[in-house]
Amino acid sequence: MGILLYDLAAADDAIRPSPFCWRTKFALAHKGLSYETIPVRFTEKQKLPAGHSKVPVIDDGGKIIGDSWDIAAYLEETYADRPSLFGGAGGMAHARFINTWADQLFVNTGARHIILDIWAAQLPADADYFRTTREKFFGATFEALQGERESAIGAWREQLLPLRLTLRRQKFLGGEAPSYADYIVFGPLQWARIFSSFDLLAANDPLNAWRERMMGLFDGLAGTAKLVGR
Amino acid sequence: MGILLYDLAAADDAIRPSPFCWRTKFALAHKGLSYETIPVRFTEKQKLPAGHSKVPVIDDGGKIIGDSWDIAAYLEETYADRPSLFGGAGGMAHARFINTWADQLFVNTGARHIILDIWAAQLPADADYFRTTREKFFGATFEALQGERESAIGAWREQLLPLRLTLRRQKFLGGEAPSYADYIVFGPLQWARIFSSFDLLAANDPLNAWRERMMGLFDGLAGTAKLVGR
Repeated sequence: MGILLYDLAAADDAIRPSPFCWRTKFALAHKGLSYETIPVRFTEKQKLPAGHSKVPVIDDGGKIIGDSWDIAAYLEETYADRPSLFGGAGGMAHARFINTWADQLFVNTGARHIILDIWAAQLPADADYFRTTREKFFGATFEALQGERESAIGAWREQLLPLRLTLRRQKFLGGEAPSYADYIVFGPLQWARIFSSFDLLAANDPLNAWRERMMGLFDGLAGTAKLVGR
Repeated sequence: MGILLYDLAAADDAIRPSPFCWRTKFALAHKGLSYETIPVRFTEKQKLPAGHSKVPVIDDGGKIIGDSWDIAAYLEETYADRPSLFGGAGGMAHARFINTWADQLFVNTGARHIILDIWAAQLPADADYFRTTREKFFGATFEALQGERESAIGAWREQLLPLRLTLRRQKFLGGEAPSYADYIVFGPLQWARIFSSFDLLAANDPLNAWRERMMGLFDGLAGTAKLVGR
């Protein structure tokens, strides 16, 4: 049996948006490992293996691992003979910083700009759960958060500058080839792309070229994903 | 002959503040390479080897390399048998992102908070050069920039969150031991510490523990540095 991935689903089972699950899907593809996904909605946590309450979780022949970072570390160690996700111990240590930076900027802050779109793509029970938990986190209504988008997006995009400057010097965050660092940053962009027709990147952002490269990887793993309403 | 490092000096020759030169000093120490420094002030660029206009520059037995990143890459390749600065190819690629992030946050933005203190520690000709070039860069007077410090420092410090979260999980950005990524981030903090009694870190910032560890490395290389007015 291949690896099982518990993957977040929206109202439509074919919509698989989670930024963290995308990181894991790319990590599995990078290692050349086949997998099947099990759709899990916000309010279907009982479907997850015991002791787990968040996606992604993988089941690798009975070995259960949760958390996208821990899954990447597990895959790197367990499948050490396959292409490296981190490019060595230093690569893994430094990727930890990129992971916390990206979570902060994209997931915790970037989500504001598309939060109503995310909410609207859920089944009613999931939509209620999502609104209650996230409005508490942000301390504002979804309408207020997304309503500030046009005035807030400029300052948000400025924070992408370190990415732009890095990708001006190298093709991927991983260097000449993609590494887990690329999947870390791409995951949330894919999440936004799936949920919203509003693009977090400006049309003239040089990061578009990198995102296009990412969408083409592994036979269009991300590029062929189903998008909400499209 | 050992390696020569052209190192920025303030009015007092013993004050060696450059964040980029600190990165290089740590890289040399990490590799266990001895070096001598040649003090160069802003207006003494004629002292630098031909074709170079910025510190750091090293002269390794006639091999001349400028730019802190390029120097680190040169040392890593040339002294490959000595302790690795990056921990592998992935570590180097990912450190490039940390380098651009840190330059943006600390050097381009963080400098605002201590810019008058930097200016005040220069010889008159250097002070004039520094004010003219940097006020043009920032589009504001030094007095205005440092004057906003009390109101601006809170939001600036929030941007250190990815560092805090990373260092909650590992002892150094490099993992169990320091890597060039640690020197990248520490360099600007050392620069600020040398010039100003105003601390970029809040007294209760958990990053203080990491900074203390950094100051103790290599027999107190940074911890024993001379500070302006102290």
